[in-house]
Parts: sequence; structure tokens; C-alpha cells
Amino acid sequence: MHNGTGPCYADMMGTDSEVFSGQFQTVPLSESQLDFPGKPYSLSVLKAGYCLPQTDGTFRADGTITLITGPRTILVDTGGPWDRDFLLKTLKEKGLEPRDINVVVGTHGHSDHVGNLSLFPTAVMIVGYDISDGDTYRPNQLAEGHAYTIDEHVSVVPSPGHTGQHVSVQVAGTSAGTVLVAGDLFECCSDEDSWRDLSMNTAVHEVSRQEALRTADVIIPGHGLPFRVLRS
Amino acid sequence: MHNGTGPCYADMMGTDSEVFSGQFQTVPLSESQLDFPGKPYSLSVLKAGYCLPQTDGTFRADGTITLITGPRTILVDTGGPWDRDFLLKTLKEKGLEPRDINVVVGTHGHSDHVGNLSLFPTAVMIVGYDISDGDTYRPNQLAEGHAYTIDEHVSVVPSPGHTGQHVSVQVAGTSAGTVLVAGDLFECCSDEDSWRDLSMNTAVHEVSRQEALRTADVIIPGHGLPFRVLRS
Repeated sequence: MHNGTGPCYADMMGTDSEVFSGQFQTVPLSESQLDFPGKPYSLSVLKAGYCLPQTDGTFRADGTITLITGPRTILVDTGGPWDRDFLLKTLKEKGLEPRDINVVVGTHGHSDHVGNLSLFPTAVMIVGYDISDGDTYRPNQLAEGHAYTIDEHVSVVPSPGHTGQHVSVQVAGTSAGTVLVAGDLFECCSDEDSWRDLSMNTAVHEVSRQEALRTADVIIPGHGLPFRVLRS
Repeated sequence: MHNGTGPCYADMMGTDSEVFSGQFQTVPLSESQLDFPGKPYSLSVLKAGYCLPQTDGTFRADGTITLITGPRTILVDTGGPWDRDFLLKTLKEKGLEPRDINVVVGTHGHSDHVGNLSLFPTAVMIVGYDISDGDTYRPNQLAEGHAYTIDEHVSVVPSPGHTGQHVSVQVAGTSAGTVLVAGDLFECCSDEDSWRDLSMNTAVHEVSRQEALRTADVIIPGHGLPFRVLRS
């Protein structure tokens, strides 16, 4: 999140027209397209994030929560602390208890993304560039720009900019192609006017964004609905 | 935390001799000195953090957890997800339920510091530069270098460097003088050889450290025991 005093825009309804960014075109998907089946991994957006300016200068905001199921069960971002009951209930509706989550990825350490880590004390925990199993932290090469491979289909990719140690999760082989669970690499589909104010390093962030647009077919952003990427 | 591939040192036993850093001298306090009574605020270190290299290249690490009691009840850092039961039990021993915590401060978004935010869904949540009440985020001036005042005795001060939006909590009026709950601004008392490798911006971090050494009488670091600051 990190709103500081900057603006924040929402793309809740997916009604924006297609956005061109150089040789890429980003197209909002429909509000109901929250599931991306695939083999061996499928994704499901449990909660689409939002960021809504209020009239009193505050913002109501929450980060997108995404579940990846397949050979491993992976939760990407956990919302804010207020999402605790929602998250437990939604996982239960999918037949899952917290202990069934093998890996929790916090794309970055903002409170609307890492609000519920404590629900998953037995999961491998990846928050930004830190990878831990209980209190044992394992060295890795994320800070050197190398993806952390969960398996041949799923990897955690460094995507700094919004924060200095931000990561995203790339899933190959879905029916929609390669899906990137982006975290706040992208706020929403049409975030050209807002992402810079929420970025800790816009130059680094831009590089990360361009790399995502080159490789992902669908992007699940941190504060909006999923969108498709078309490359000319 | 963020160990990447860098070293990490522990100062668990407080046996290091005094450390000089320019005109400052830092002196470890005894292992048993974890309480700092005062009026109107007192502090209690519920768990001293640690960072212990293992023979297999991993690290065992946890962030310091500090309770501040007085007109408001404030928890600074929440450990890692594995600390959930310990934290609940320890608060209970002090006669506190999670709902009694008015403010939770996550000094920064690393997993060994923000592991248990979900225990406190009713608290005002300050994680790095983000201040929220439920999902309502309030603008503030932390990114502009201005402290966020909880009251005339307690303030959240920006202390960037370890991460770009790192904060510390300053408490005036204790029997030990001004106490700074530093987070990872300081790893431990004798961290001269280690803090830079764990820092995202050493130049900015050094400025933050010097400011802390100028103003605090006692510093509670993120991965070690509290220590005293003596100024020549």
C-alpha cells in the first residue's frame, strides 16, 4: 500500500477501455473472471484488492488475495488483519484448512498484504526476499535478480520498485497462459497515473513492470481485477 | 530480517565490551534488564530478538517484541508467525487480551517482525509508513521525515535504511531516560560489522542511526538485547 499523501485509484468495475503502453495492450477482464484453471496449477482470486479514496482524505484499501492449487497449495498475499475471518471462511469453502497451505508468499511487507501470516505457522513463508521455515531463514538469490523456483511451473520472481524487495509469483500452463500474481507491481489495469506516487523507486519499478508485460498473459494486480496483456 | 546471502551476527549474551562510534559509546545491558519502568509509560521486552548463523548456511532469526504500557497499550513488532502462541500467552500473563492492544507498530514489513498482525484486528496498525484503522488508511507525513505523534510521550519516528519505510518508536520519561524501540535500525549492540549487509540503503541508514544515537538513552534493537547509549 503506502499511500503517504499520494493519490490512489481503483479499477473495480473493469470498465476502462484498453490501455496501450508502448508495444503492450492491457485489457481488463470481466468482474466474474477470477478463476484461471490449468494443469497442473490453477489460480483463484479469493478477493480482488481495491484502493478507494474517501472524501476525508483517507483511503480504503486492501490487497488482492490469490490461491494457487496443484502439486503445491500456495497463497499469494493474505490481505489485512481485518480479513482474518474472511480468509479462514473462504479457504474452508474450498475444502482447505490453514495447515493445508504449503507456501505463503507475501509480495511485500505492507499491512494490506501481510496481515494474516500468523494463520500459517507451518507453511514455507516467502515475504519479499526472505524465505523461512519457522524461524529458519534460507539464503537465496532474489536480491541478485534470480527467481526462486518452487517447481517447473511456479516461481517467485523479484519485481522491485513498489518496495525494494517486492516479489511476484509466476504460474505457467493455465488455460489463460502464463499468469503473474503481481502484488503491487501493478495497482490495477489502468494505473498509469497512480503507480509512480506509490513507488519507492520508479526507475527500478518501470523495469520490473516492462519485464512483466513481456512475459505474462494475465496479470493479477494488487488493488484491482485481473487483466490480460496483449503483445503486438 | 532480509538475510539474502549476507552475514548475520548475534549479541545474545551482552558480553561484548563497550563499543565506540565517534562521540557515542554503546554499552550492553544485562540479560535480565528487559523492563524499563516510567511515568506515564513503561516498556517491557517480551522477547529479545536473535540472529544466529547455522552451520548449513541458514540463519535462525526472530525480531524483538516490545510492549509499551501506559495511557495507551502499544505493541512494537509481533515476531514471526511461529511466535503466535508465545505472544498470546505472554500478553495473558500480563493480564492482556489482544483486544487490549490499542496500537500495533510493525517497524518494517519483514516476516520476523510482522508475523502476527492478524491477532490485533481492532488495533490502530502502523506498519512502516502506513497507518490504518481496519481497511482505512490515513495519510501521514512519515515519508517526509516527520514523526507521527501518538501522544506527548510516545512517537513513531521514520528511521529508513534497513528498509525504505522503516520506523522506530521513541518513548520519553522512563527511569532509564528516552528509550528507542529501534526495530532493525540496529541489529544488536555490536552490529558494526553486520548492519550494512542487511541494509537496503547504507547512507540513509547511517543518518538514521546517528540520529538515534544522538537522542536515545537506551536502544532496544531488533535482534539482540537492549543497550545504553552514552554521549561524550
